[in-house]
Amino acid sequence: MDQATATPAVSIRPSRADDCAEIVRMIRELAEFENLPEQVEISDQGLCKDGFSQDPFYKCVVAEVPPQCRSKDGHTIVGYSLYFFTYSTWKGRNIYMEDLYVMPEFRGKGIGKKLLSTIAEIGLGKGCTQLKFAALDWNRSAIDFYLGKGAVDLTATEGWHMFRFEADAMRRLAGGQWDN
Amino acid sequence: MDQATATPAVSIRPSRADDCAEIVRMIRELAEFENLPEQVEISDQGLCKDGFSQDPFYKCVVAEVPPQCRSKDGHTIVGYSLYFFTYSTWKGRNIYMEDLYVMPEFRGKGIGKKLLSTIAEIGLGKGCTQLKFAALDWNRSAIDFYLGKGAVDLTATEGWHMFRFEADAMRRLAGGQWDN
Repeated sequence: MDQATATPAVSIRPSRADDCAEIVRMIRELAEFENLPEQVEISDQGLCKDGFSQDPFYKCVVAEVPPQCRSKDGHTIVGYSLYFFTYSTWKGRNIYMEDLYVMPEFRGKGIGKKLLSTIAEIGLGKGCTQLKFAALDWNRSAIDFYLGKGAVDLTATEGWHMFRFEADAMRRLAGGQWDN
Repeated sequence: MDQATATPAVSIRPSRADDCAEIVRMIRELAEFENLPEQVEISDQGLCKDGFSQDPFYKCVVAEVPPQCRSKDGHTIVGYSLYFFTYSTWKGRNIYMEDLYVMPEFRGKGIGKKLLSTIAEIGLGKGCTQLKFAALDWNRSAIDFYLGKGAVDLTATEGWHMFRFEADAMRRLAGGQWDN
């Protein structure tokens, strides 16, 4: 196997609306890996509407291989990273990487590194001084990958915890139905 | 002391560019409370540019009291909440509350609740199904406040950790200077 075959000529490019079905497929694969597949409620249509109408809620890059390198079940979109811009009141502009995923049969070929590198480049180009993301504490291979590239675990070092109000709680908050 | 004096006629309104100096003052007060004041690098000018030019990186609401209720040192802007819209590949549109702050002398009057309620309303109005935020693990009064309103601690329940690449690490990533 020559080098060209071992490392397919992957291209990283901005996602298009017609990639949404492939991205949702990989979102589901990632959630299954994270043991939280029941949490996925997104649809192709929802993802397309939220990313490709005015004032999009996210941006995304995909990793694409040539047809001759496609996956066993025929996919040429073999990875993605979904991101958006956020803000730190301490440091200013941030880029937030919501997901970084490469299909298992395409791992070990540097595709995840290329996606991460692209996110860092996009962030720097927008004047961001931080790239943030979240990872599950048991996902040691991912955490070791990120720590090895210079990431800091803010939960471990500073004690930051992530919180969420779901829709029902939001409605109670918005309605001012305070318990005390 | 009558009820009107005990609960000042606070108004919650979107921030304006000329509020930025007051917001930066409160950002510093909050960082001091969080024992991380050295991390604040934001300037009035930076905050103004990032929030009030095309494609703003954040939005903000402030809590304002009438002049007769101003703080001991003369402030009428006595609280703020800075937020932006993010995205969950599982649930769709999110609103993220970066900061929620009320000056100590104005606490216990429901102003924090009004700010939080406003963020929930804004999020629901935009079709968001989640309101997310982060808190420091030792800040029990804040955490108890949020848990009492229905928030879920995702770090405790699911094991999510927050990570950050700072600017130097981003430049190494972007330059493709991979160690392996």
